[in-house]
Amino acid sequence: MIKVAVIGGAGYIGGELLRILLSHPQAEVVAATSRSLRGRRIDGVHPNLRSRTGLAFTTEEELGHCDVVFLATPHRETMRTMPRYLGVAGTVIDLSGDFRLRDPGAYSEYYGLPHECPELIESFVPGLPEHHRDRLRTADRISVPGCMATAGILALVPLAESGQLTGELIVDARTGSSGAGARAGAENLHAERSGAMRVFAPTRHRHEAEIAQVTGLPVRMTATGVEAVRGVQLICKAELAGGADERSIRAAYRARYGDEPFVRVVAHRRGLHRFPDAKILSGSNFCDVGFALETGARQVTVIAALDNLVKGGAGNAVQCMNVRYGLDEASGLEFTGLHPN
Amino acid sequence: MIKVAVIGGAGYIGGELLRILLSHPQAEVVAATSRSLRGRRIDGVHPNLRSRTGLAFTTEEELGHCDVVFLATPHRETMRTMPRYLGVAGTVIDLSGDFRLRDPGAYSEYYGLPHECPELIESFVPGLPEHHRDRLRTADRISVPGCMATAGILALVPLAESGQLTGELIVDARTGSSGAGARAGAENLHAERSGAMRVFAPTRHRHEAEIAQVTGLPVRMTATGVEAVRGVQLICKAELAGGADERSIRAAYRARYGDEPFVRVVAHRRGLHRFPDAKILSGSNFCDVGFALETGARQVTVIAALDNLVKGGAGNAVQCMNVRYGLDEASGLEFTGLHPN
Amino acid sequence: MIKVAVIGGAGYIGGELLRILLSHPQAEVVAATSRSLRGRRIDGVHPNLRSRTGLAFTTEEELGHCDVVFLATPHRETMRTMPRYLGVAGTVIDLSGDFRLRDPGAYSEYYGLPHECPELIESFVPGLPEHHRDRLRTADRISVPGCMATAGILALVPLAESGQLTGELIVDARTGSSGAGARAGAENLHAERSGAMRVFAPTRHRHEAEIAQVTGLPVRMTATGVEAVRGVQLICKAELAGGADERSIRAAYRARYGDEPFVRVVAHRRGLHRFPDAKILSGSNFCDVGFALETGARQVTVIAALDNLVKGGAGNAVQCMNVRYGLDEASGLEFTGLHPN
Amino acid sequence: MIKVAVIGGAGYIGGELLRILLSHPQAEVVAATSRSLRGRRIDGVHPNLRSRTGLAFTTEEELGHCDVVFLATPHRETMRTMPRYLGVAGTVIDLSGDFRLRDPGAYSEYYGLPHECPELIESFVPGLPEHHRDRLRTADRISVPGCMATAGILALVPLAESGQLTGELIVDARTGSSGAGARAGAENLHAERSGAMRVFAPTRHRHEAEIAQVTGLPVRMTATGVEAVRGVQLICKAELAGGADERSIRAAYRARYGDEPFVRVVAHRRGLHRFPDAKILSGSNFCDVGFALETGARQVTVIAALDNLVKGGAGNAVQCMNVRYGLDEASGLEFTGLHPN
Repeated sequence: MIKVAVIGGAGYIGGELLRILLSHPQAEVVAATSRSLRGRRIDGVHPNLRSRTGLAFTTEEELGHCDVVFLATPHRETMRTMPRYLGVAGTVIDLSGDFRLRDPGAYSEYYGLPHECPELIESFVPGLPEHHRDRLRTADRISVPGCMATAGILALVPLAESGQLTGELIVDARTGSSGAGARAGAENLHAERSGAMRVFAPTRHRHEAEIAQVTGLPVRMTATGVEAVRGVQLICKAELAGGADERSIRAAYRARYGDEPFVRVVAHRRGLHRFPDAKILSGSNFCDVGFALETGARQVTVIAALDNLVKGGAGNAVQCMNVRYGLDEASGLEFTGLHPN
Repeated sequence: MIKVAVIGGAGYIGGELLRILLSHPQAEVVAATSRSLRGRRIDGVHPNLRSRTGLAFTTEEELGHCDVVFLATPHRETMRTMPRYLGVAGTVIDLSGDFRLRDPGAYSEYYGLPHECPELIESFVPGLPEHHRDRLRTADRISVPGCMATAGILALVPLAESGQLTGELIVDARTGSSGAGARAGAENLHAERSGAMRVFAPTRHRHEAEIAQVTGLPVRMTATGVEAVRGVQLICKAELAGGADERSIRAAYRARYGDEPFVRVVAHRRGLHRFPDAKILSGSNFCDVGFALETGARQVTVIAALDNLVKGGAGNAVQCMNVRYGLDEASGLEFTGLHPN
Repeated sequence: MIKVAVIGGAGYIGGELLRILLSHPQAEVVAATSRSLRGRRIDGVHPNLRSRTGLAFTTEEELGHCDVVFLATPHRETMRTMPRYLGVAGTVIDLSGDFRLRDPGAYSEYYGLPHECPELIESFVPGLPEHHRDRLRTADRISVPGCMATAGILALVPLAESGQLTGELIVDARTGSSGAGARAGAENLHAERSGAMRVFAPTRHRHEAEIAQVTGLPVRMTATGVEAVRGVQLICKAELAGGADERSIRAAYRARYGDEPFVRVVAHRRGLHRFPDAKILSGSNFCDVGFALETGARQVTVIAALDNLVKGGAGNAVQCMNVRYGLDEASGLEFTGLHPN
Repeated sequence: MIKVAVIGGAGYIGGELLRILLSHPQAEVVAATSRSLRGRRIDGVHPNLRSRTGLAFTTEEELGHCDVVFLATPHRETMRTMPRYLGVAGTVIDLSGDFRLRDPGAYSEYYGLPHECPELIESFVPGLPEHHRDRLRTADRISVPGCMATAGILALVPLAESGQLTGELIVDARTGSSGAGARAGAENLHAERSGAMRVFAPTRHRHEAEIAQVTGLPVRMTATGVEAVRGVQLICKAELAGGADERSIRAAYRARYGDEPFVRVVAHRRGLHRFPDAKILSGSNFCDVGFALETGARQVTVIAALDNLVKGGAGNAVQCMNVRYGLDEASGLEFTGLHPN
């Protein structure tokens, strides 16, 4: 059994890591930490884990050696505490934003503060098995992308790397309320957030920088909170390079994702479910990607959807662990999603 | 113009008072207070009031004389500050729970603390025009019932006072999230509250005591938070006394409410909308009441619905003001509700 | 592998059976039928099953022999076609309402038509492992209870059979929209149903008869549609017999459910999640039951929650199959539910 | 009193017209038609109108002369029946899509069928008071824009006509379920539509053509259904022409909308409500518009929100009537919207 610990276990990403890892046949959760809830039962905060665990939260200071540490801690704090975890665990899988951007300058631009240990950035492998599987097999430091970034990267990279996109990428991102975390303030009260269409980042959302970094194309993204607890959906518009058409786009996706267990191409001509929709993905590790062409085929609309807490966070992190330890990549991630939901 | 002030203007009840009073043809809002937001524009907190007002919040200490003061302040605090407002305003309309229960013993039992000015309780007239219109015409101290209590009292009193009910009343109350107020904590985060069916008061909800006080029957009420921002619905089950039947029940409602502008009897044999549903009442001052009989007609199920912030609070309070000042009782309360919504 | 077929596979219960059975390690789905969708891929209707199956719908007439047939077909139709399925399958597990009520008179009273094969009723074993496990081990005809009935029976029987309840049971049931099925009409349009608190059965809901049949006590139930896709919650109020108190109630639940894999007692003194809430149960096979006592302890409020499509239908049916075939009872039913959701 | 009739009164736009007109101080509703509901009370379909009207639906054939006819009928059918209404009413206000596009070729391209009375198109004045007030004062034929088109036109025209935009417009539109109408099919069942992020028009939505027609710029729009009953929100991205900056954009909006009763510019630096959100607009006739600039100010993100049934339909139509008959433009349209809601 792989001994794993979850740092920041009381948050939503932490809870989702615990849900997946407690059911994972090759993992043993040895610790979940929370400074404010030390000694309290985990299932008091995450009631879905009742009858699944009797564990109580501990503090980071009590943490002994373990095989894998998952960091579900806030940015800024994470880069400061990283050295400690590198000493405690064989493999560190970081879900914060602190080691995603290669360029410390981009970090300070998007996060509003200078990076405090830029020398460590290069040692982290991006936690996206679809694009970095080989490196992940031996990685001891893994940085999982942001939820919207994962959706955008999975949807756009096959087209970008096959040279089918040109110009800049216009991205419209919608997200549910769980992305704001369990400590969110008045702006996330139900009465304020329910039914909202709230543009919380008209420009310069942090995940924009991740998509630009990977695709090599300029990105202009707007992020809006819509009515959902879980779920991210991206609508991306781009110019097509010469020669690109429906056939070549499908071919690019097939080449990249034909054998992938967690990426599905959803682009049908008709039907209720012809494009990716986060609604049916809650709890599952799928990222669905699809596309539609404008008449004349000079522009493409690319659509991606995922559960921000699973493929956009905890599930993706566990998938990375599975790759790293040579396990079945879907281990612990079998849940297929619900319909209707 | 009647000069009115709203104390506690930053909360949800306060905001609803402001929405109604700013459009009221005979009222002039001279002040809205908020300790924490002094000097800030009202429409920054209540964005629906944009272009309706340029007012900013003041503090209670700055309040000068006015005709009517509406108190949308927390219980306990209200009974302490009441003497000040009795000196400032011609008419005080209190929306807190502090002067609803006639019996100080019941107050301490349900509110968990002794009443601090029991000698004032008797001077308040219950703020329910349907049952106390004559007294309200000259009342200078008015205590508006709780949202669930208003629904329960309006639905049950016609049957209780005509002697058609016997035994105890079983009440199941459902409520939206706005009832928890704008300062609510983690339990009202959207991610936690969305889609919930949360039994927050399995027994001993405070509004139970108000229904018992008015009907003279024992009440056992359970209150559950369901997915809605606005809206209260009560399902009440009671035994029927001898001789009661559908005809006598309809007659009792007709006698009480045939001429009432804001109570509608909704009890149809078929159709999508045959019983009261809070969904279509958002923003309106209606309380819809209905009923169904068990086969054999020995028991009745009574159903009531209203918008907790309007007929269950601010709208009802303004209706009281209209009665008190001899205005058209519907003044400022004309909005009819939306369908669909 | 157990060869299973799902009759009525295009509906919501049918889809949920397919979701569970396609992931079940000891089951092989050999057919899913739909008259209107013959030849169409299953994952076109149930998009969560994409990449899980390439199966297409067949018709009932094409069905060959199989080990287990699950009937997710409408009442009335089911009793007519039952003889055919009894000939085709080793075990028939019926999810319709046609073989739940022992008394054909109660059937005609609650379903509005006479039963057409009353002689078969007695041969069906109630599909509730918690109460009929021994009989289910050898049962070839199983009738799964209704969703609200399952919640009510699981919550009330331990108290009723230990003699702690007296008088009649008052039940308030709330349900999500998926209970109305995939063919529902205008009353289930999103614009009409969203945010509704719709009393669709003020009295005489069919599941009431099931609860009365099992508890032996008279039941008066009201059913309301509230905003949710999945989920049933019941609030039951009853008189306590002499000697019953919190300790004896907890003891009764512990005796019955201490070893049950899918019933949890949730009754805490404080916290956000202290009573059963359907919100965290979507997709899981749990039924959570809890209770609260009135001051003086002469009445009890019992609360139950489940996912109407899982423990209230498909999951419970698969649990019965697991019992019947001597499998791990939780096989295929491991999903623990999501928080937040 | 202006005698008005609503054709297609049983639909959602029809119901909203009735809600507004029944409260309108200068209008008298003389007829509401519905072929399928002839003789049935209007408030049976639109329960919010209970106690507001005792009218029953009639058929189109029974319609006598009236001052204003509002057509809330489907496209295609409307162009066929238009000649009849032109003979019956002094003023025809059409809410269908049939007379919005000036170019019959664009009509057949976007609506999939040839226009059947192209000679009438030119005689219709666009029903948008903010841009066509003078022509509307004497117009007898008015064609109200589509809901998303109204939002897009109001948000983009001030910038387009002042020469501040260049290149093409990328529009992401989100809409609630009421836009699909009261006759919608299985795709709008609550269980399917609730919480959805459904891309129903990845390209070529009809309202795109209206925005292009008015702005003179190419438009690429994607439309997604999100969780809401009412509400449309558009996120538009465009390149800025030389010299455009925040100051010039604000100036353009101020010049256009400084005196408009129903357009508000909402673009704040901070706060929960800093950009337009449809959530607070339900039932109100406001269109809120806002914007944000990319760093470097070469691109602008424009945001617009409205209630699709009010400013995006019925309210806008009544505003046109008010202009046409020289009434206070806000007559009947005073409702300010709710917060929270």
